[in-house]
Amino acid sequence: MAVYTEIADEELERFLAGYELGALLSVKGIAEGVENSNYLIVTEAGPHILTLYEKRVDPTDLPFFIGLMEHLAARGLTCPQPVRNRAGEALGVLAGRPAAIVTFLEGMWIRRPRVEHCAQVGEALAQLHLAGEGFAIHRRNALSVDSWRPLFQRSEEGADTVLPELGAAILRELDHLEQNWPRDLPAGVIHADLFPDNVFFLKGHLSGLIDFYFACNDFLAYDVAIGLNAWCFEADGALNITKARALLAGYQRVRPLGADEIAALPLLARGSALRFLLTRLYDWLNVPPGALVAPKDPLEYWRKLRFHQSVDDAGAYGMDL
Amino acid sequence: MAVYTEIADEELERFLAGYELGALLSVKGIAEGVENSNYLIVTEAGPHILTLYEKRVDPTDLPFFIGLMEHLAARGLTCPQPVRNRAGEALGVLAGRPAAIVTFLEGMWIRRPRVEHCAQVGEALAQLHLAGEGFAIHRRNALSVDSWRPLFQRSEEGADTVLPELGAAILRELDHLEQNWPRDLPAGVIHADLFPDNVFFLKGHLSGLIDFYFACNDFLAYDVAIGLNAWCFEADGALNITKARALLAGYQRVRPLGADEIAALPLLARGSALRFLLTRLYDWLNVPPGALVAPKDPLEYWRKLRFHQSVDDAGAYGMDL
Repeated sequence: MAVYTEIADEELERFLAGYELGALLSVKGIAEGVENSNYLIVTEAGPHILTLYEKRVDPTDLPFFIGLMEHLAARGLTCPQPVRNRAGEALGVLAGRPAAIVTFLEGMWIRRPRVEHCAQVGEALAQLHLAGEGFAIHRRNALSVDSWRPLFQRSEEGADTVLPELGAAILRELDHLEQNWPRDLPAGVIHADLFPDNVFFLKGHLSGLIDFYFACNDFLAYDVAIGLNAWCFEADGALNITKARALLAGYQRVRPLGADEIAALPLLARGSALRFLLTRLYDWLNVPPGALVAPKDPLEYWRKLRFHQSVDDAGAYGMDL
Repeated sequence: MAVYTEIADEELERFLAGYELGALLSVKGIAEGVENSNYLIVTEAGPHILTLYEKRVDPTDLPFFIGLMEHLAARGLTCPQPVRNRAGEALGVLAGRPAAIVTFLEGMWIRRPRVEHCAQVGEALAQLHLAGEGFAIHRRNALSVDSWRPLFQRSEEGADTVLPELGAAILRELDHLEQNWPRDLPAGVIHADLFPDNVFFLKGHLSGLIDFYFACNDFLAYDVAIGLNAWCFEADGALNITKARALLAGYQRVRPLGADEIAALPLLARGSALRFLLTRLYDWLNVPPGALVAPKDPLEYWRKLRFHQSVDDAGAYGMDL
């Protein structure tokens, strides 16, 4: 929870009166989610999640995010479903911010993922890629290869205070990625942030995906690379090849990867590692005063990047070539 | 939320297996409560609150807090009720910390209390004082008059950086309070922290009291003085005498104050204002690195203290004398 907006009582009641959810019985701020303020509200219609979109989210992107959740849910993917108010709108204004109510998903995110979780995440990611087909709105990936150099320039001055020579190493990596980034791979809607805290499990089974606020259109295999980075490394920084194999096999059971995607995987994994290194580096060097969230260690993604730099082909991730 | 302990999945499941609550369906950290980590858990038995007691709570006090909630609930006060595990224990260990599960109370705390809320808070405070009679465990108020000078000494050096001459003014107030603090007023179990975020309302009616982790034995009228400070001042620092009159009248409908208590009220209000000034001053000057909570403004309580210093008798709080 980065920002936490206090909602005045009367304002919340007025907002909820626009919905067919009955009286409000409870509201609690949730200490999760970095970009927005989230509240678990209980009304006579049961529990729901109320989200206030804080300033890091571009309001013009909200119809994409809200529409995508509706599109995916209609195609059988378990994800929060926006609740429309009496006027038929899924997006309102509360406490001066865009706000939406979505359905409550049962399940818990897994603090220490095991191989069986990685397999299910791979499957769910492929299901998401298939379910996203036909979604009418398009959202460019604002955090893809062409954004990384300008993003780095905002942290360049402080980079070497985090690790000696880090700045020069990032510049070399930027050169390499910009020159070699694929131009033509199967593309579609990707989640782009499928970390463990965005995947719920219930009694060992994946019960839903949440937090679509980085979703965009990009190469589907780039989402797989993000998943490898997010799920398949151990706390000591080493890849767990058994987890990687399980994630990739799970994905391919639902949507087999093409030869071009498999060949590109190490480079996509480097790009994905650099993307999270750069945003974490920026957050690390720019903790706002009064911030309610501790910044995440950027060097975790530096170590992942170094690993992917040493990889020759997707066999290093347990893929049968 | 000051501290936020991550609980490993297996550990939480093992802990819950000791209770008759069925399978765990959801767990969310709650962004409220400064002293402890609180989670809203949903199990097959419904929603409950799981609290991990962090290091600011003395574990030897926990039997008092847990026992008090059971005692009060048994006497009809609506407050969280500790859930005992299969072994009959209300207190366990989770993630290396003492932990307890309590029942979930419906209701919301009021961000902007109105007169009618203050009246109900007065009534509930008196009901709490009556319901606390006969509770067998005794807990001294660790934040009463004899603790204030040593507490101030830990902030003395930085006090004038917050406001010029603040240190000298606090020393003068300490002298006055130590010399004049009452010795013999009706005493019993007090809540000692009945701020708006610890009182729930549902559809305009008070629905329960929470957070008994400052409760102790002290003068009952001191709790009333804390209530005046917590509920009856406006954002501009002025007392709202209509709210104060409502809170006091509500209290007296359930438990009439004695003449000695009424006479002591201005002094008790000064003491209560100083107590919160001192703890906030300490927190303000000692924000731990990585703290997840913004410290509260100590000067809010300096202004309240100055007001009470100007008061001759409880008539200033709307009391008919």
